Amino acid sequence: MSSHTQSNGPAATPPPVKVAIVGASGYSGEELVRLLLNHPHAELTAVTSRQRAGLTVAQVFPKFASHPRAKTLRFTEPNAELLARQAQVVFLALPHGVAAEYAIPLLKAGCQVIDLSADFRLRSAAVYQEFYAHDHPAPELLAKAVYGLPEFYRDAIRGASLIASPGCYPTSVLLPTLPLLRAGLIQPGSIIADSLSGVSGAGRKAELDYLFVECNESVRAYGVPKHRHLSEIEQELALAAGCAVTIQFTPHLIPVNRGILTTLYLTPAKAVAGAEPAAAFAEEVAACYRAAYANEPFVRLLEGKALPDTKNVVGTNVLELAWRVDARTGRLLVISAEDNIVKGASGQAVQAFNLLCGFPETAGLA
Amino acid sequence: MSSHTQSNGPAATPPPVKVAIVGASGYSGEELVRLLLNHPHAELTAVTSRQRAGLTVAQVFPKFASHPRAKTLRFTEPNAELLARQAQVVFLALPHGVAAEYAIPLLKAGCQVIDLSADFRLRSAAVYQEFYAHDHPAPELLAKAVYGLPEFYRDAIRGASLIASPGCYPTSVLLPTLPLLRAGLIQPGSIIADSLSGVSGAGRKAELDYLFVECNESVRAYGVPKHRHLSEIEQELALAAGCAVTIQFTPHLIPVNRGILTTLYLTPAKAVAGAEPAAAFAEEVAACYRAAYANEPFVRLLEGKALPDTKNVVGTNVLELAWRVDARTGRLLVISAEDNIVKGASGQAVQAFNLLCGFPETAGLA
Amino acid sequence: MSSHTQSNGPAATPPPVKVAIVGASGYSGEELVRLLLNHPHAELTAVTSRQRAGLTVAQVFPKFASHPRAKTLRFTEPNAELLARQAQVVFLALPHGVAAEYAIPLLKAGCQVIDLSADFRLRSAAVYQEFYAHDHPAPELLAKAVYGLPEFYRDAIRGASLIASPGCYPTSVLLPTLPLLRAGLIQPGSIIADSLSGVSGAGRKAELDYLFVECNESVRAYGVPKHRHLSEIEQELALAAGCAVTIQFTPHLIPVNRGILTTLYLTPAKAVAGAEPAAAFAEEVAACYRAAYANEPFVRLLEGKALPDTKNVVGTNVLELAWRVDARTGRLLVISAEDNIVKGASGQAVQAFNLLCGFPETAGLA
Amino acid sequence: MSSHTQSNGPAATPPPVKVAIVGASGYSGEELVRLLLNHPHAELTAVTSRQRAGLTVAQVFPKFASHPRAKTLRFTEPNAELLARQAQVVFLALPHGVAAEYAIPLLKAGCQVIDLSADFRLRSAAVYQEFYAHDHPAPELLAKAVYGLPEFYRDAIRGASLIASPGCYPTSVLLPTLPLLRAGLIQPGSIIADSLSGVSGAGRKAELDYLFVECNESVRAYGVPKHRHLSEIEQELALAAGCAVTIQFTPHLIPVNRGILTTLYLTPAKAVAGAEPAAAFAEEVAACYRAAYANEPFVRLLEGKALPDTKNVVGTNVLELAWRVDARTGRLLVISAEDNIVKGASGQAVQAFNLLCGFPETAGLA
Repeated sequence: MSSHTQSNGPAATPPPVKVAIVGASGYSGEELVRLLLNHPHAELTAVTSRQRAGLTVAQVFPKFASHPRAKTLRFTEPNAELLARQAQVVFLALPHGVAAEYAIPLLKAGCQVIDLSADFRLRSAAVYQEFYAHDHPAPELLAKAVYGLPEFYRDAIRGASLIASPGCYPTSVLLPTLPLLRAGLIQPGSIIADSLSGVSGAGRKAELDYLFVECNESVRAYGVPKHRHLSEIEQELALAAGCAVTIQFTPHLIPVNRGILTTLYLTPAKAVAGAEPAAAFAEEVAACYRAAYANEPFVRLLEGKALPDTKNVVGTNVLELAWRVDARTGRLLVISAEDNIVKGASGQAVQAFNLLCGFPETAGLA
Repeated sequence: MSSHTQSNGPAATPPPVKVAIVGASGYSGEELVRLLLNHPHAELTAVTSRQRAGLTVAQVFPKFASHPRAKTLRFTEPNAELLARQAQVVFLALPHGVAAEYAIPLLKAGCQVIDLSADFRLRSAAVYQEFYAHDHPAPELLAKAVYGLPEFYRDAIRGASLIASPGCYPTSVLLPTLPLLRAGLIQPGSIIADSLSGVSGAGRKAELDYLFVECNESVRAYGVPKHRHLSEIEQELALAAGCAVTIQFTPHLIPVNRGILTTLYLTPAKAVAGAEPAAAFAEEVAACYRAAYANEPFVRLLEGKALPDTKNVVGTNVLELAWRVDARTGRLLVISAEDNIVKGASGQAVQAFNLLCGFPETAGLA
Repeated sequence: MSSHTQSNGPAATPPPVKVAIVGASGYSGEELVRLLLNHPHAELTAVTSRQRAGLTVAQVFPKFASHPRAKTLRFTEPNAELLARQAQVVFLALPHGVAAEYAIPLLKAGCQVIDLSADFRLRSAAVYQEFYAHDHPAPELLAKAVYGLPEFYRDAIRGASLIASPGCYPTSVLLPTLPLLRAGLIQPGSIIADSLSGVSGAGRKAELDYLFVECNESVRAYGVPKHRHLSEIEQELALAAGCAVTIQFTPHLIPVNRGILTTLYLTPAKAVAGAEPAAAFAEEVAACYRAAYANEPFVRLLEGKALPDTKNVVGTNVLELAWRVDARTGRLLVISAEDNIVKGASGQAVQAFNLLCGFPETAGLA
Repeated sequence: MSSHTQSNGPAATPPPVKVAIVGASGYSGEELVRLLLNHPHAELTAVTSRQRAGLTVAQVFPKFASHPRAKTLRFTEPNAELLARQAQVVFLALPHGVAAEYAIPLLKAGCQVIDLSADFRLRSAAVYQEFYAHDHPAPELLAKAVYGLPEFYRDAIRGASLIASPGCYPTSVLLPTLPLLRAGLIQPGSIIADSLSGVSGAGRKAELDYLFVECNESVRAYGVPKHRHLSEIEQELALAAGCAVTIQFTPHLIPVNRGILTTLYLTPAKAVAGAEPAAAFAEEVAACYRAAYANEPFVRLLEGKALPDTKNVVGTNVLELAWRVDARTGRLLVISAEDNIVKGASGQAVQAFNLLCGFPETAGLA
């Protein structure tokens, strides 16, 4: 998948790229602020938020108050025309359906746009309409958008003007399954993904369901059985499998701030029940994952006894991956863990930003 | 303080008393629903909530769905006239300032009212105005109201028509300090109360500050230095001390659902620094607490090495109490733990209800 | 499955049955203490614990200190001969492999034994050896033991001398699947059970893995792919299906004290993809569940939009159950929630105790 | 207090300093590993742990597994002679009483030692004996040791060979109080410190008290009234006040992984009750804090409405500080928040390391 994980940095320090964040007061926006304030090659010139306009970054996010820019950089009302003058690359951390209205004028003005919403992830406006229940706001841009999963779209990202950064659940499902599908190791129709997400995945929204008392000492499934993220996941799985793919996906809400753990139940393409076939297939899977990810800076293959644990990836851009072949049932289990806000959102967007600008892919993310 | 902790139950089972809850969809209301559905001498005939009118108790609170009445009892819009026909005793679990408008007609109609808000806790309309920033809605009722702290107002509660059930913080401060002040063991002006409260204390309100992600892995003080509950606490302390009392009170929000832990720093009326004076004073304090609480069913004195822990009282109507005299500083430390929603709100209200109706004080609370 | 959910209580109050708990200092033991201290027809005469011998119940469990018996009832060293004189029914809350050594002499002495360990759950000593890696300590008792799942073994429990109370995970898997298998609605080989358990499931053991800091803000799978509980689950599934059954089972540890949520992925016996077949099959499943559980006091069918949530069952003996047929994939999803220590352990044991003694099945559990 | 917060880095990059960590498998050790692996001027050459000897950093701490050195650096048995050859600066993250036995040979061999235990924090071996209940293991080194609180001992740290890094609670009490005592603004005898600590403060120890289930949904005080950290706090307060100081200090355990919030109750040196005196005194306090900390990179003064919150400092080396003068009581309240493992332990040790080696004080800590 990847030959050049880290591009060679240029000999001299490149001039910083001016960047802006639209919708910077949510959890993904906040993480973008953190990453871009500390990015060695980015200069954060604008942050916008309707509710927080006028306040400094230090006032809205006290935890960043010790950064030298936090006392001077102020939130503004979002204004595409102004943003286009302030920044070369604009990150959109907005709700679905809203991102498009900023993307259009920013692209026209020559900006590069990295959108963290679902607006440009689907190639088909019809599928968007089916899952999001309204017409796509800018169908003409869909062909232009690149799906911002660096491990699989590295080259396309490098030349893109519009990057649709993947969702948190999709990232946790796609990185484990795409190599297996491409290699023909599993049956495309067999995929069951059982995901557990921290509460930040619901966004910074004042809703009763996400109050501390409603989430603490509670576990629950939701969005069963047709979650919106399915459309994006199935699109990418189909491209890898070379045929339409329908999967089973169940998200659950668990009382942690950050992290997604996804357990995948997969049926191998051939029968592998029994100790020896299972061991042999486990080695085939290992070889497939090593080929895909051994040189990837942000995918960590666990080959020993350890299983993924969200606490080992929270705060980082790393996705952990482990697998087991069950000799009794002949099924393949794959488990992934990621920080839903970093590799599942803002970190992945910065990873794409690094590719876009020719910086080392790990810049600002180590 | 207390001579007959448990009144003798009548020989025959008394007929159940019809009760209603106004504002039953918040956390205190929910706990009242739980306690009154299972109360051996109460029949819950009405629950009201503007937002939930029309739904059954089972729909609003799935956890009570197995109770036989949960599928038939429906939330209604609050209507004082109707409530007066449905119930003899009405519990008000409403925001401050709103409770009074229901109390007035209900009292006129002959109901007994147990109000869990702050509306009738203060004897002075002027103090109410100072702390709550609006005129008292029914100043003529203040003289009629009885402060519903059973351990100190047991007899008055028995004959009351309007009971002002104490706040959660006040209960955690008053039960430890009132006996000491009455006995003249501490300096009234020395009281410092440092309180830690679970998030349910903020109510079931859709506000960003109480989202899971904002509270989990966080600890913070708030309402410093002039919290509204001060007025109620200081009123009762002054009555016990026989002089005006001003205290220091700092509430903190900690990431638990339920529970208040209050640590009190008190200056003894006489100097007790040094090992022997400290030990002697500790024994005086013990004797004072035993006299006050040995027969109280809902105050648990910890006389060994153990210190109060909220996990030992959550879900119960018990307040735990321990004390230490610091031989180095000569100060008295007292620590209390309670469930803020039970002894700090709904359980205490049911305790008062039991007194009001002549039931055993522990009925429905054990 | 059940015709008489509640036996009619006898006209006069039955005399209390003397009961004892061996291994009462763990989490299941503690919950048994709570349930039996408050049980209307049980008298708790002995509690044992090697580490806590000599201490009172109030000292070991401060939260029970307000119960009148807590200050006098003392933990003792476990001694089968003595226990047989103190109690008619003895609950064993001991580790696997240890329970048998108490069960043998207690049964000989005429006691009835309710064992919460896995020692007597399997009918085959060979399967026990395979999953627990040591010889069964008392294979001659296996034929005598009754699997203590009241919803399916009610009559056998009534006459039993040795009850093997089910495990927490098995309960969460069996109650959702047994009726479906008996009715032939699902393919026996298709069962995938993805379970999320609170940390109390690991027991009160001083191990690094279960420290607060290791579990909080963490989610992880464990025991993959061959967990010990599989043996017990598959035995009961096979009995219901009438053929050998091998399932996929993945337990996960999540940061809550109590609760198990199990999500089951099942393949219907016939093809049900598409809106109409799916809706029709959902109705068949509903009818099957209603037939099995409509009169069960401790199984709550959620037939509306709500999905199970552990916070709605924690502290109760209720298991919540909901199901969805996915019209896209043709799979049946069933989700269950229970309190792992109550319905998953001690509450279920008390439910069996009630049957054993002819008490109303809900006595002490409502 | 501080004139040169950041020393000017030398023109050329300095060669990295070789460092080792003794006792690297606890929480402070783990954080030192994280900080030193990523420190621009340090090369981590050795990590020791009796229990983990032979394992790689990646095996012991999966979360660091993506760092290039984590797969090759192995834990070893601690051996002072060997360590002295491997490192110039050695961090000791060991239990009290054990650190000294490594410090002595390391110092003799010419290493510089930064000790995170309490062994060298006290100037008096007698006070050590009183609070730690055993003779000091190396009293001759006490005079040599420098208390590693950079904000107050910056110059001494620069030339030290043995640095006694402050405790977590002491840091949270001393930074707020030392400037006030030096300026004579508060009565030295009046200090009451009420502290709330996350569970990591108890260390990575397999004890029942720190199990998830015992800490979650629980709050409790402990170590009342004579906690060991008092000795260290009072020593430093006395030096600032110019007289013996005895304080009141109550630590509490709260269910968060990281963070200490300390609320201080202080009596001003003059009477300040009433609105105007209180406001004037608040301004004096503000001026005092600004003089002390305005240029400090790791002390953040909150001068607006915001109060400290542990979530704003966790993961950083920053201590947040706010203050209020209560016009009603005339008391001064000061609240501090820090990460107990960073500014309260390992981050502060690295800050001292930077001073020791002439690096920018914020190197590796921003």
